[in-house]
Amino acid sequence: MTISGDQSLLREINRMAIVRAVQQGAGLSRADLAKATGLTKSTVGLLVQDLIDSGWLCESDVQATGAIGRRPIPLGLDGRRLAMIGADVSLEGLSVLAVSLTGEVLEAASEPLPGRRPEDVLPRLAVLVADVVAKARSAGRWLLGVGVGVPGAVLDHQGTVKLAPNLGWRDYSFHAVFSAELAACGVADLPILVQNDYDVAVLGEYEFGEAPLPDPLIYLGLGVGVGAGVVVRGRLFLGADGFAGEVGHSILQVEGPVCSCGRRGCAEAFIGQRAVSTRISGRADDLLPVETIRQLLDRNDESAHLSVRRAGHYLGVLIQNLWTSFNPGRVVIGGPLCDLGPPLFDAAFSCLEGFSRDCSLPLPELRLARFGSRSIGMGAAALVKHVLTRPMDYRLCDR
Amino acid sequence: MTISGDQSLLREINRMAIVRAVQQGAGLSRADLAKATGLTKSTVGLLVQDLIDSGWLCESDVQATGAIGRRPIPLGLDGRRLAMIGADVSLEGLSVLAVSLTGEVLEAASEPLPGRRPEDVLPRLAVLVADVVAKARSAGRWLLGVGVGVPGAVLDHQGTVKLAPNLGWRDYSFHAVFSAELAACGVADLPILVQNDYDVAVLGEYEFGEAPLPDPLIYLGLGVGVGAGVVVRGRLFLGADGFAGEVGHSILQVEGPVCSCGRRGCAEAFIGQRAVSTRISGRADDLLPVETIRQLLDRNDESAHLSVRRAGHYLGVLIQNLWTSFNPGRVVIGGPLCDLGPPLFDAAFSCLEGFSRDCSLPLPELRLARFGSRSIGMGAAALVKHVLTRPMDYRLCDR
Repeated sequence: MTISGDQSLLREINRMAIVRAVQQGAGLSRADLAKATGLTKSTVGLLVQDLIDSGWLCESDVQATGAIGRRPIPLGLDGRRLAMIGADVSLEGLSVLAVSLTGEVLEAASEPLPGRRPEDVLPRLAVLVADVVAKARSAGRWLLGVGVGVPGAVLDHQGTVKLAPNLGWRDYSFHAVFSAELAACGVADLPILVQNDYDVAVLGEYEFGEAPLPDPLIYLGLGVGVGAGVVVRGRLFLGADGFAGEVGHSILQVEGPVCSCGRRGCAEAFIGQRAVSTRISGRADDLLPVETIRQLLDRNDESAHLSVRRAGHYLGVLIQNLWTSFNPGRVVIGGPLCDLGPPLFDAAFSCLEGFSRDCSLPLPELRLARFGSRSIGMGAAALVKHVLTRPMDYRLCDR
Repeated sequence: MTISGDQSLLREINRMAIVRAVQQGAGLSRADLAKATGLTKSTVGLLVQDLIDSGWLCESDVQATGAIGRRPIPLGLDGRRLAMIGADVSLEGLSVLAVSLTGEVLEAASEPLPGRRPEDVLPRLAVLVADVVAKARSAGRWLLGVGVGVPGAVLDHQGTVKLAPNLGWRDYSFHAVFSAELAACGVADLPILVQNDYDVAVLGEYEFGEAPLPDPLIYLGLGVGVGAGVVVRGRLFLGADGFAGEVGHSILQVEGPVCSCGRRGCAEAFIGQRAVSTRISGRADDLLPVETIRQLLDRNDESAHLSVRRAGHYLGVLIQNLWTSFNPGRVVIGGPLCDLGPPLFDAAFSCLEGFSRDCSLPLPELRLARFGSRSIGMGAAALVKHVLTRPMDYRLCDR
């Protein structure tokens, strides 16, 4: 009895099962992979050779162990041939990267946002992407696809931006329009994937992280918006409508301050850039640049210190609530507000340590975002790798 | 190219893929199943016959459609032959059910808790389970296994109760001891599975629910403890250490009342039975029976109404936070406090409607627990079905 059916899909499922196994345990040999995947040694041998030929895997040097006999050859992801394009559409500007399978940045281009209307943004983004595509190709890279991270809610299977409040976009057919713009720039042969910015950021941490990969993994993004991307059982967790992880709008205080979403007491209304700005300036709905807030902190401005420490305390509460809800293996903190440094984080850690002491439980691992201000661009590239290496999940979707 | 390897495991994976497909879409024909699973029609034909022979599936009557030619035979889960045993260990007592594949209760037995020490509890539980096993077998049922729900954190792969605070158990090898006790009662041939009470309760809702099954699905349990079980992408969500869904200990108010866990302002400290009792009686740490609180409500006791409405309001906040974190397809509310009825739920719904209005987003579907006070026993039986129908997930575990 064997699984039969669509043979090319099955072959792809098996190929990608091997890639994922190598990613989870770099240095595995062909024999290890047969054990890890349940495939026969001969099948693994054929697929590994194919994966080496097509740029996914490479053989590493055999380690001298002193043992007698032919030593198994360790396999790893090959960072030298394949690449993904990752694009970050944000209020700060457009940024496009070409990234290797192992997470090295190969090419980069960026420019300020040419306006907020999609008809201003998408043609410029297409030019920027086409430019990076051309450079990566002339450097000999084989490209797998283009990922885009946008600051809003995205319907996964359509590539439609449901709502991007800070850009003012609603029900916008991003995938369809961007595909046409990119084709007009001479790039018509690459798959295009669109997803929420924090959702792609967590994939950057996951796909380019070192094994063993923590699971669940949460990326908590701190900026004007506060939100999270979550990986559960090795796959991006989207929820029923694609809005899972909108934890910036979980309530931390009944009848607290009004939030941009209309509710009161949301995490974002305590932690977000607008909340910190308003506290410092005393003007409702003020939005100071992060750099300005940092300068005030450097000058020991008391109001800035109080405001940032207050945000940090609520950041601790939010992380504690993520901890009890998701039981994450790791929480990664990213976004522009990370530039505020110790005044923010010391308050958050001290709050979290208090909770941990009160309930006598160890905290989950906390980390700063691996790629800093490039988290979303790296994540958008990682989205391509994530989807291609899970052909079963994304073609025979279980919802 | 085909997947090869452990042939009996692969056969089981394919068999159970068919069972899950039938569960997701009752009335599917063999041809529909071939499309849904990617297996060939001949493989599906052989496996369906085997599943019919072994009691998993049955053929339903063909609907007259007026179409010409041989009509496809609709398939469904067979409720007449297989059964699972579900045991609920709680402060209120021991309760054991035999449940059919389609969720009918076939046998039931219960008795008060014979003490709180495990050496008092487990021998009695084994006698009760052996009794229900004997009755179900003499009624002609083929049994698949025994599931147990316990009020505490359980390490999934070991069946160890890490911590059950209200029973006072810590690091107790439940699975090993209970297997021995059950064997001493003459039942040594059934798989035994142990899991947290709210985690099994969500499986009762999922496994015995009608298709299409909502996903993510959350069961929010309200009693002395407050917590949730969560299904994500068709599978119980446990988190890194098995504690995901401990949302009773998410903070709803910084510096709020002290919780049983030692932290301040946890959801449980606003919503749990102890919080309501303390508010009514004015005595710290009081615990009134739910029935007493209900009688006070019936007598229009003002303090009881205020206390329960306050708990209801925070219940609304907690559900709103589950909504933004998990984006659930459905939230099910269960547990003893549900007996408090409208004073609790009206306050919760009114709070939730306020949030929904503020942010102009529709609420997730809300339901009362399908099986009421039997939610945990039904869930424990469902745990057996859940694990057996996911042989890949639970044998080749991805964490």
